[in-house]
Amino acid sequence: MRRIIAINREFGSGGREIGRRLADALNLEYYDHEICTKIAQESSLDENYVNNVIENGFTNNFNITYSHSISLIPSFVDTATVLLAKQHKLIKELATKQDCLFVGRGADAVLADLNPLRIFVYAETDSKLKRCRERAPEGENLTDKELIRKMKQIDNARASNHDLVADYDWNDKFAYDLLINTTNVDIKSIIPSLTAYADAWFKNHKSI
Amino acid sequence: MRRIIAINREFGSGGREIGRRLADALNLEYYDHEICTKIAQESSLDENYVNNVIENGFTNNFNITYSHSISLIPSFVDTATVLLAKQHKLIKELATKQDCLFVGRGADAVLADLNPLRIFVYAETDSKLKRCRERAPEGENLTDKELIRKMKQIDNARASNHDLVADYDWNDKFAYDLLINTTNVDIKSIIPSLTAYADAWFKNHKSI
Repeated sequence: MRRIIAINREFGSGGREIGRRLADALNLEYYDHEICTKIAQESSLDENYVNNVIENGFTNNFNITYSHSISLIPSFVDTATVLLAKQHKLIKELATKQDCLFVGRGADAVLADLNPLRIFVYAETDSKLKRCRERAPEGENLTDKELIRKMKQIDNARASNHDLVADYDWNDKFAYDLLINTTNVDIKSIIPSLTAYADAWFKNHKSI
Repeated sequence: MRRIIAINREFGSGGREIGRRLADALNLEYYDHEICTKIAQESSLDENYVNNVIENGFTNNFNITYSHSISLIPSFVDTATVLLAKQHKLIKELATKQDCLFVGRGADAVLADLNPLRIFVYAETDSKLKRCRERAPEGENLTDKELIRKMKQIDNARASNHDLVADYDWNDKFAYDLLINTTNVDIKSIIPSLTAYADAWFKNHKSI
């Protein structure tokens, strides 16, 4: 039986940290940005470009980069479509080869046939602000208002990207097996219990 | 520090079973129908009547029992208001005396000041139907359609009752610390992990 975990998360909620720690504890291969690195290598494209196209979604890219030049849209759509298709193919290949944990990237929907344990991580705005401040890149001096706007933009892009592969909403609780509110939670302290939960859940659910 | 857990749950999702087992594992006093028993004893009212008024909410009682006789409405509202107020007072008294776990009854909102661990338990309809069938009272012969209607009615009443004490929706994920989808889950098998989660959460959150 293949053990697959798919984590979606609000920006600043600590979902990636949960994913990394859970993958370590359960001995699962961890994939997040690693997917873009692999695609960039295979496509001979710049990794940042691949990351931007895949993570920020069609709509945002149109608005930010291409709205001044309508003639560029068709080729961008082609590139984005190809990169997203590559991402889904790669996710499927990785998941059939080994036990693994994916953060984001629509893996919950792409791997639905493999019956992954689907987790959503979220938190109240103040808690996410605090976490973002602690982990801000050097030199980032956003006001709270700007940071809240950034968090919303990223979450909207994640929801839009998810819509491309799923027929349910990104933040619909029925799309998940477990939803974790990390407000005022020390993530390290809950990992042993989440590991035990995942172990029990995998024993309950026979996939592949 | 007082350890309080408040569980809300969809009918048929196994939330009560999770509550009972979690209370046992964590050595918490368990309260669900016991609240109505206490109120009935103190008020010298029939326990079933107290249960019906408190659990089915104002609106449902009007529709089912009182719509034929408008003259009964004022006294019913008085009784319901008094019983709900008694319930909230009792919940607060119990929670300040000892560590405890409440299933339903708006305890998450009534005890907000005590910072309870708030859990929501839900499941897909097929899973809830199966659970309801396994636990149906002898002689209950509802069709799937009737049982689904009953489940919806009960959940609507729970949401309406919750609205009387909370300024947030009963099934809003931001009202909870953990949401558990019990679809295809053997509840007994996840209790050790939930116990560990609650232990870690209580260590993270200093209340009282």
